[in-house]
Amino acid sequence: MNIVTETISVKTSKRNQMIDITSQVADVVRSSGIANGDCIIFCNHTTGGITINENADPAVVHDMLMTLEELFPQDRRGYRHSEGNSDSHIKSTLVGCSEQVLVEHSKLVLGTWQGIYFCEFDGPRSRKVTVQIKGL
Amino acid sequence: MNIVTETISVKTSKRNQMIDITSQVADVVRSSGIANGDCIIFCNHTTGGITINENADPAVVHDMLMTLEELFPQDRRGYRHSEGNSDSHIKSTLVGCSEQVLVEHSKLVLGTWQGIYFCEFDGPRSRKVTVQIKGL
Amino acid sequence: MNIVTETISVKTSKRNQMIDITSQVADVVRSSGIANGDCIIFCNHTTGGITINENADPAVVHDMLMTLEELFPQDRRGYRHSEGNSDSHIKSTLVGCSEQVLVEHSKLVLGTWQGIYFCEFDGPRSRKVTVQIKGL
Repeated sequence: MNIVTETISVKTSKRNQMIDITSQVADVVRSSGIANGDCIIFCNHTTGGITINENADPAVVHDMLMTLEELFPQDRRGYRHSEGNSDSHIKSTLVGCSEQVLVEHSKLVLGTWQGIYFCEFDGPRSRKVTVQIKGL
Repeated sequence: MNIVTETISVKTSKRNQMIDITSQVADVVRSSGIANGDCIIFCNHTTGGITINENADPAVVHDMLMTLEELFPQDRRGYRHSEGNSDSHIKSTLVGCSEQVLVEHSKLVLGTWQGIYFCEFDGPRSRKVTVQIKGL
Repeated sequence: MNIVTETISVKTSKRNQMIDITSQVADVVRSSGIANGDCIIFCNHTTGGITINENADPAVVHDMLMTLEELFPQDRRGYRHSEGNSDSHIKSTLVGCSEQVLVEHSKLVLGTWQGIYFCEFDGPRSRKVTVQIKGL
């Protein structure tokens, strides 16, 4: 078994944003030399997340971020955390800070409409995402 | 290390539905010949998901789907995606499109009440779930 | 490739609670003898979860639990499950019952502010968390 780990950088420009990182992850997979196995995409931050969702119509991303902002507004009566980003932390926990994708023939096994997104919930910031490929 | 990957088919009959696929996944594990390792269950669709939850009382599934439908109704003011399934996409991202279960003695290591569910959020449809077992 | 699996115990004291288990997981990683690979942290219960979030300011945990309790109150009109913990099951599915963390140099690869939490949504109870390290 081989293991290859690399870090990719993501620069965000809004407080809430989803950035398609599929091609960056696919590059790491291709250059890893691993043909068959799996790929973990891990976000090293507590106010960001990783998700897999539609990468065709940008309206889907708009609607998902809008829904999250309505259900988890920045201000909520009773919040104690003084940085004003408690909503960012809860969104991170619900979306999740990592995803895993299978690798076959040195390619990510994604459905037709699936893309891998870094989710920014407290931007704009410079972020790090760690990608690990494990396999044969 | 060995890697075995198989696809299982799921046919759904409602717009929102949870279908227990534990026995289908267990069959793939058993026939893989892998005794010790892990199993990734991955949904190849952006309006479905995979979760692990109670498989004893069907009322739990009813209550979970009802809660999701109340918090994420199909219509929300401001939705731009023209297919009318923005709620399906956000539910997919929050539930998540994959799960991982440990494998020991060629069996899934699940708690007493845990079952693996395919979650349909935009049915009825014919769906694909990819199962990968990795181990020794 | 080597695989090491161990179970850790968590005792909770409230109905909703997040307990930092990072050091317990790190102990399993260190004693596994595996230098490079990944670590799966899996909750064997359907009313608990595993998440990764800030472990610096305890106000973050307070605010996250408060948000979950407001969005998913114990009582909701229409709940059929007779045990009175349908909210616990839906929180478990949304937070998720497992996390994966990369391992390098026999250490968990976590961001500066990231800790691993067991999430109790139907306590107080005695809980089991399974930790599996896979790698070289």
